[in-house]
Amino acid sequence: MTRTEPAGTPLGDDFHLYDTTLRDGAQREGISYSVADKLAVARLLDELGVGFIEGGWPGAMPKDTEFFAKAAAGELILKHAVLVAFGSTRKAGGTASRDAQVRALIDSQAPVVTLVAKADRRHIERALRVDVDEACAMVSDTVSFLVGEGRRVFLDAEHFFDGYAYDAETSLRVLDAAGNAGADVIVLCDTNGGQLPLGLAETVRAVKERTGFRIGIHCQDDTSCAVANSVAAVQAGATHVQCTANGYGERAGNADLFAVTGNLVAKLGMEVLPAGSAAELTRVSHALAEIANIAPDTHQAYVGASAFAHKAGLHASAIKVDPLLYNHIDPALVGNDMRVLVTEMAGRASLELKGRELGVDLAGRPEVLTSAVNKVKRLEAEGWSFEAADASLELLLRKEVEGPDGDMGEPPFTLESYRVVLDHRPDGVVVSEATVKVHVGGERVIATAEGNGPVHALDAALRNALLPRLSWLDSMTLADYKVRILPGHPGTDAVTRVLIESSDGDREWTTVGVHGNIVEASWLALCDALVHKSLRA
Amino acid sequence: MTRTEPAGTPLGDDFHLYDTTLRDGAQREGISYSVADKLAVARLLDELGVGFIEGGWPGAMPKDTEFFAKAAAGELILKHAVLVAFGSTRKAGGTASRDAQVRALIDSQAPVVTLVAKADRRHIERALRVDVDEACAMVSDTVSFLVGEGRRVFLDAEHFFDGYAYDAETSLRVLDAAGNAGADVIVLCDTNGGQLPLGLAETVRAVKERTGFRIGIHCQDDTSCAVANSVAAVQAGATHVQCTANGYGERAGNADLFAVTGNLVAKLGMEVLPAGSAAELTRVSHALAEIANIAPDTHQAYVGASAFAHKAGLHASAIKVDPLLYNHIDPALVGNDMRVLVTEMAGRASLELKGRELGVDLAGRPEVLTSAVNKVKRLEAEGWSFEAADASLELLLRKEVEGPDGDMGEPPFTLESYRVVLDHRPDGVVVSEATVKVHVGGERVIATAEGNGPVHALDAALRNALLPRLSWLDSMTLADYKVRILPGHPGTDAVTRVLIESSDGDREWTTVGVHGNIVEASWLALCDALVHKSLRA
Repeated sequence: MTRTEPAGTPLGDDFHLYDTTLRDGAQREGISYSVADKLAVARLLDELGVGFIEGGWPGAMPKDTEFFAKAAAGELILKHAVLVAFGSTRKAGGTASRDAQVRALIDSQAPVVTLVAKADRRHIERALRVDVDEACAMVSDTVSFLVGEGRRVFLDAEHFFDGYAYDAETSLRVLDAAGNAGADVIVLCDTNGGQLPLGLAETVRAVKERTGFRIGIHCQDDTSCAVANSVAAVQAGATHVQCTANGYGERAGNADLFAVTGNLVAKLGMEVLPAGSAAELTRVSHALAEIANIAPDTHQAYVGASAFAHKAGLHASAIKVDPLLYNHIDPALVGNDMRVLVTEMAGRASLELKGRELGVDLAGRPEVLTSAVNKVKRLEAEGWSFEAADASLELLLRKEVEGPDGDMGEPPFTLESYRVVLDHRPDGVVVSEATVKVHVGGERVIATAEGNGPVHALDAALRNALLPRLSWLDSMTLADYKVRILPGHPGTDAVTRVLIESSDGDREWTTVGVHGNIVEASWLALCDALVHKSLRA
Repeated sequence: MTRTEPAGTPLGDDFHLYDTTLRDGAQREGISYSVADKLAVARLLDELGVGFIEGGWPGAMPKDTEFFAKAAAGELILKHAVLVAFGSTRKAGGTASRDAQVRALIDSQAPVVTLVAKADRRHIERALRVDVDEACAMVSDTVSFLVGEGRRVFLDAEHFFDGYAYDAETSLRVLDAAGNAGADVIVLCDTNGGQLPLGLAETVRAVKERTGFRIGIHCQDDTSCAVANSVAAVQAGATHVQCTANGYGERAGNADLFAVTGNLVAKLGMEVLPAGSAAELTRVSHALAEIANIAPDTHQAYVGASAFAHKAGLHASAIKVDPLLYNHIDPALVGNDMRVLVTEMAGRASLELKGRELGVDLAGRPEVLTSAVNKVKRLEAEGWSFEAADASLELLLRKEVEGPDGDMGEPPFTLESYRVVLDHRPDGVVVSEATVKVHVGGERVIATAEGNGPVHALDAALRNALLPRLSWLDSMTLADYKVRILPGHPGTDAVTRVLIESSDGDREWTTVGVHGNIVEASWLALCDALVHKSLRA
């Protein structure tokens, strides 16, 4: 028999960490998962150790049907999680066993089904256009049928909190219809996301007492309280919590899986993940952002790149002494790091601390530190930002410390000139071509390349010039490229800031370039990336 | 006598909406306000109607000292808010009246001072390195001195919640020292941001009962609960809440002023803003993001562009009937709009609804609707996204509805070809030059221009070609330019998506272009922007 309970987590089936990134999360503006993406997301979530993965709505979304088919065919082997199919109850006036949508749930072969049912009388009467008796029959018929077919069934009670406030008896009848027909968890959904934690916790407690059912919670973030509401519900007795990765979801989004899990583990001491898995939260969050093709939220709680980043120059000296006094948890618990930010607001202490983090010792060199602080301030005034570009900052600090004759030695190459030509020809074809003239290993080299666009062509031409002479370049790729247009100071033109993330398979590093011209800004970041790699080659 | 109470809000001094964007918000990675920025931020916050604006830390930050000097010199006239200076207590062993930092608070001429004091024994002993007696004396001396100088004083009890859990008596002694010396509000700060709402509300209630002081709350977002914690504190008896615009702040940020205010107004029915001001929340949020030079968070509760955006094709028909069943509040209450998103997941109903929103009637034209849906799907598969580019979508729909001979008539110009040349010369100077060949008003025009970068040069050359013939172009400017690199499907190259926001002083509109080449993608978005303007010229 197929497993219907989470495996390998200390709390087992007593607590459900339930992920709906692939269904409700995909409602977020800008997300469109391919079937391959969906498989990759499910694998990462399973690796992390969530208990349930809602894979989609088979029968309603062709991509979701295909995803379940591939999973059933063995393309998705889950170690911890159970795969869940989401769907609606039978149509009004119909029979569950003959309903096409209900059949699609069976056909998906998912061992668990989450059925959605409206639990607000206004939605039943005005959107569904049936009476409450029929709405309850639709729920109980469908639950009974699926349970009879060997499925474990959860009920998403849609619009529950609004419905309960409007007409509690109707909402409770819907819950009873599901629970009495064999649904195993009754999930109270704040579908419109309008709840606040104190009131929501009271409702959860009251419903649990009144019905005796196992209660789950599903929150949307329209009051910016989705995480707080989810945690408050757990404190009030819910033992099943539905989240999405990074809070992806419609409108303001859903409860963020990573913040909810961080809070359950670090604040309530609940072992909701397999041992050691919490330290994967940061990595998995970023990997899932990558697949969703959404830039990670740097200020996200627990897992954001800035979640443990301290800017205040005034605090930097105290942080050096006792970091745990300034962080709510040890960042390593969730796989994150403390960072000290180098900005014009920061003073000598934070730049010294940052240097230590980057392996550049500024401790006994007050005059070098002064010169480095002044240089960083001047560049930041021009639009540079080193907060996200540690590799460029490291080069800057090393140049200050080591001087022109230091260990850094000769740069791997020097530029004489480059030219990029872009043509939109009369036949509509667009061509980019770049020529670079560089000096490398005592030689003057001229190389040309075409590319999709100006930066790609320039990168390709530079590689053509350097690769025969610098073999380490081969492993290096451009992993990400970000562009930001910065408004100029009054009377000056705007400048462009480019961040380039490079990778050599083992490491990733980020460099920055700033210039009025996007191609020159890219060039500066590209050169820093190469020099940084050459120091470790 | 200078005003020390908020003016023009129904709740007056009974409730304090206190903004610290200019001090604590400026700790966010990436924010660096100029003095002019600070004045602009303060004016917007005052216009919105917050009660207190913390302007900075005079004496510690040169820019802040200058800001207060300008405010005192009459450059900042506040209609609703009171200006607050932030600072620390006298140094250990010193005298408040002779302390340079304390003097700077007096010199700032701010009528209200918020003093920060450590309220956690570990911080007192390990960071401050004094005993609890001296820490309390530092607080009471400084409060007494400032009150004697005619200032209204608030106390920020730093690290209060962690301190209270560790050694409640010490934390309460610090509060007593401030309150008994004349501080008017005792602000409990969750400085490390580790609290959850149920526990925090209990502590607020207990401290209020025990001390009898007026209680304020200051939350950081490290558990993703800053907004929930702030609102829970108000429900537990706090009558002063400290926030920052859009939640800007160190690490995960602070409690978001807009979500907190939205919740207080829409959920708790508290009149914390002047009458009618809540409808300005969305506009002010976006304007403050602009000044901070941070892209607005599209998924922000209440004020985000997606906060009331519905994607699901399946719901679109029900939303048409009864929008309030699907939104937690009427978006107009906070100055926001409901939007229906056009995406590959959306069906005919949502595209029809979107057409209506854009003034393109697709209702009685099923064959046109089919063709438009197919076109949108095909383009989205290629990387186009119309979710944020209504102007491009409107052009697409109008072309479908009106056909080649419709009201849109001839395009204002047609392109024959363009060429852009970028030179990084051996002397280090970088030059961009563009030439366009276009047909406009029956004429073939060739024009050339230089620019900071390739897109700027191309825009300038096009303007040179068109301006003598199309006078309406004169009022049009590029307001914003965004670039996103999209990874390709397996076996294909990455493409670049460019969004251009244009403005003509009255209106702003956004267009999109997608291409492997960033310059061509920009060109496509630029052309849509011009055509869109020409239809209204």
